[in-house]
Amino acid sequence: MARWEPNARGRLVQAAMELFIERGFEQATVADIARRAGLTERTFFRHFADKREVLFWGQGALRELIVETVASAPPSAAPIDVVTAAYEAAGGMLQEGRDFSRQRQAVINANPELQERELIKLASLAAAVADALRQRGVPDQAASLAAQAGTTVFRIAFERWVSAPGEPGETGEPDLPRLIRESLGELRDVTAGK
Amino acid sequence: MARWEPNARGRLVQAAMELFIERGFEQATVADIARRAGLTERTFFRHFADKREVLFWGQGALRELIVETVASAPPSAAPIDVVTAAYEAAGGMLQEGRDFSRQRQAVINANPELQERELIKLASLAAAVADALRQRGVPDQAASLAAQAGTTVFRIAFERWVSAPGEPGETGEPDLPRLIRESLGELRDVTAGK
Repeated sequence: MARWEPNARGRLVQAAMELFIERGFEQATVADIARRAGLTERTFFRHFADKREVLFWGQGALRELIVETVASAPPSAAPIDVVTAAYEAAGGMLQEGRDFSRQRQAVINANPELQERELIKLASLAAAVADALRQRGVPDQAASLAAQAGTTVFRIAFERWVSAPGEPGETGEPDLPRLIRESLGELRDVTAGK
Repeated sequence: MARWEPNARGRLVQAAMELFIERGFEQATVADIARRAGLTERTFFRHFADKREVLFWGQGALRELIVETVASAPPSAAPIDVVTAAYEAAGGMLQEGRDFSRQRQAVINANPELQERELIKLASLAAAVADALRQRGVPDQAASLAAQAGTTVFRIAFERWVSAPGEPGETGEPDLPRLIRESLGELRDVTAGK
């Protein structure tokens, strides 16, 4: 480490990302990560259950935000707008950490097992969103379709966002909430047969 | 077995399904399946690499049919119509085997690991469909959205189809290709904000 930083979790995340990218996720051990961060393995395990958790730890909060936003939307809002607004809120939360998201995506793209885990997490998120819609009185099938469509829109906007050029703070840095709205527009066109 | 049947593969599938449902997928062994079918384990392994393949073996042909149908659609057809037509063709192929599909779904629903495998297979199918659309000249993002939307429509129609009442040959037996078209209509309404 170039200099001392008080934030153990942040140092561990940064060290893990560097090592996952340099050596591959499988090859990097918790011992390596702790050493690179200038911390002990014991400290690592105070923050993360295992090295995979470094990649997935923020998702619980994101899921809560999404489900909460769906639950608290105005009763008159159309299901697809409710879902999109929830993902836009999540996008706003992710927007600040684009560097992390980009590194994380590179690590996941390089590892089929992590890709499967990501897929399963997204499917479980879509199921939670569909449940939250049903609790608002949206009929079963419409709830599944809106949740699935919204999750697709989010995933595709997210992929564009992480792969777009532009650095944080630069003019023209891609904006995830805006990309989500644009992707919804594209999905509308596509499903309408355009 | 009540009576001799010449079709070893069919007997193995039937025996496997019975045992998966009676005992659970994990608990049923290949030895059990072969015994129930009145055949040897060696015969089982001539037909299937492992017991999981009994549930997934038809999918290669289905995928080929879907990708082929996308590739050979008229150039002027809208991407979502191309994808839906491909899934309708697959639906027509599945329609004859609703009993198998119902049993299969019951086995998969009871086993999280099989659910994950099904999810991964569907994601890989959607990716293959998106690739086939790109090869038709559909732009990258529209191809992903149409493939994903069509796969969602198919999945939701399939769930309705397997869970609907009505026996083969009965009037009112649910028709998978029709359910696919209906679900597409619903997705259109949902994404349009209805």
